[in-house]
Amino acid sequence: MKLGSLKGGRDGHLIVVSRSLDRYVSAEEVAPTLQAALDDWPTAAPRLQQISRALDAGQRTDAGELDFEALASPLPRAFEFLDGSAYLPHVERVRRARGAEVPETFYTDPLMYQATSAGFLGPRDPVPVASEEYGIDFEAEVVVVTDDVPMAVSAENAAGGILLVGLVNDVSLRNLIPQELAKGFGFLQSKPRSALSPVLVTPDELGEDWRDTVLHLPLHSHLNGEWFGSPNAGEDMQFNFAQLVAHAAKTRPLAAGTIVGSGTIANQDTAVGASCLAEKRVLEIIADGKPTTPFMSFGDTIRIEMLNAGGENIFGTIEQVIQRYES
Amino acid sequence: MKLGSLKGGRDGHLIVVSRSLDRYVSAEEVAPTLQAALDDWPTAAPRLQQISRALDAGQRTDAGELDFEALASPLPRAFEFLDGSAYLPHVERVRRARGAEVPETFYTDPLMYQATSAGFLGPRDPVPVASEEYGIDFEAEVVVVTDDVPMAVSAENAAGGILLVGLVNDVSLRNLIPQELAKGFGFLQSKPRSALSPVLVTPDELGEDWRDTVLHLPLHSHLNGEWFGSPNAGEDMQFNFAQLVAHAAKTRPLAAGTIVGSGTIANQDTAVGASCLAEKRVLEIIADGKPTTPFMSFGDTIRIEMLNAGGENIFGTIEQVIQRYES
Repeated sequence: MKLGSLKGGRDGHLIVVSRSLDRYVSAEEVAPTLQAALDDWPTAAPRLQQISRALDAGQRTDAGELDFEALASPLPRAFEFLDGSAYLPHVERVRRARGAEVPETFYTDPLMYQATSAGFLGPRDPVPVASEEYGIDFEAEVVVVTDDVPMAVSAENAAGGILLVGLVNDVSLRNLIPQELAKGFGFLQSKPRSALSPVLVTPDELGEDWRDTVLHLPLHSHLNGEWFGSPNAGEDMQFNFAQLVAHAAKTRPLAAGTIVGSGTIANQDTAVGASCLAEKRVLEIIADGKPTTPFMSFGDTIRIEMLNAGGENIFGTIEQVIQRYES
Repeated sequence: MKLGSLKGGRDGHLIVVSRSLDRYVSAEEVAPTLQAALDDWPTAAPRLQQISRALDAGQRTDAGELDFEALASPLPRAFEFLDGSAYLPHVERVRRARGAEVPETFYTDPLMYQATSAGFLGPRDPVPVASEEYGIDFEAEVVVVTDDVPMAVSAENAAGGILLVGLVNDVSLRNLIPQELAKGFGFLQSKPRSALSPVLVTPDELGEDWRDTVLHLPLHSHLNGEWFGSPNAGEDMQFNFAQLVAHAAKTRPLAAGTIVGSGTIANQDTAVGASCLAEKRVLEIIADGKPTTPFMSFGDTIRIEMLNAGGENIFGTIEQVIQRYES
């Protein structure tokens, strides 16, 4: 099934969306919000599945036409977002550009940071940024949403805690990163609010494309309407989602509704393009000694989406414009 | 007024607690949970204040006797926790112990990291840790809880966004920190779940002890029943809470209920003791070349509390035992 949230209130209103992404029905009878459904998933999930089946069978005459502009983030706010960096080609290139080695541990111990979860932009909301000098970038990633996961869970058991799958545009302010990371405490100002995909889906929606908690499909990014990249999320992922969830839960339980991110999708094959500007610039630095592609400007647009083998859009399209923020 | 939460459900049940911390009444008529009250503070606050006044005047015959064991964290889960490190003596000592300089920018640009907020331990809950080898430590800090705060707010305007004040035991796993920070992405496994004080209070409860968004009182820590430290939270705080909130909000708005922490309270005067074991060990390293005080073991207890000039306990006492976690 595919779940989303209509705008309204701080947590939106939970809806079930048709597989074809064109119709929806309210799920209010099951839970007012997606977080409420996740808080009581064993009860809520079968009832939501029932609505989903009836909707896809054309049996819900009360179904409305889906307007993507009316969608909030499926989780307008969440209690935890832990973002990994599981695609080593991304890490390797970024390090190579500055002449640094990739530590051996990076191949056995996932990179992951505590990200902001207090507010996710809607999938069509503008991205407000105060200054172009911040070095505005997008990052196209896959995310999962977990159930309650016990502390110190094994990767094997963590797989069962994955309830939903989606996409994220993890907005990054590149020029704030070096200074912030140099302080040693990780990202904060350099990672503003991000946007999840219009819907999150249960793994069964992905069929054979979801194997071993890895999503085996290309993720497409278009910048200002032009193709930017389609790296395959199923290739070069050093740690699968079960391993990422287990890493996140090593010393703390995860609460229902925790979001765990894959990191920017990147493949060894550079012909497939990239999922963020930083990486394209890194390839330019490696090739020419300096980057030629600028970061994003006010008015620039980014589109992120994933299609299955049949060409069907799975999660809906993230489509955002960078907007000057005036305080 | 003083607000807390009784255990029950994922978000607890909001209560108003008497100034003397011995009685309480349910605030269900105003909001089911503290987060719900924060979500609608302009409406909820005056009604909660009214309950508080009646309770302190002895006019609530329905008041119950407060049992600290029955308390959940005032915010059992929150959407954001941004923890600063505003007491420079702490930073200076830790760096001095390893022969490193404190960068000049640390005096003008706050240190702050994105912390976990998905679950706070109750004020009397044990702290579950899988291994003593992790180097278990407490950190006694002051926190504030904010209203909605706009992105890029000035420090002056940020002051008005501070709604509640409390304490936190920011549990730290010291032996996991070097390896984790070396990866460059900040704390994650080294910072498990923390515990807030039994109640959070509005700044007016603090009277003249709350000046310029700094809390001017000593914070007392007792380890295994013995005095450990009483540094004054009003001394050596390099950045006040308004500045910390403004730092947190530079590139993103803060949502109602965001927790901003001061960092471990530490004074230049070492005679007042410390607010974490790491700092005591650093002083031992500086004096003797090696630490003699061990980190915490299973069964060790920590007590954290703040008294006003009249000797009254303001926030209630955080009192926790370290417990072996078996998965």
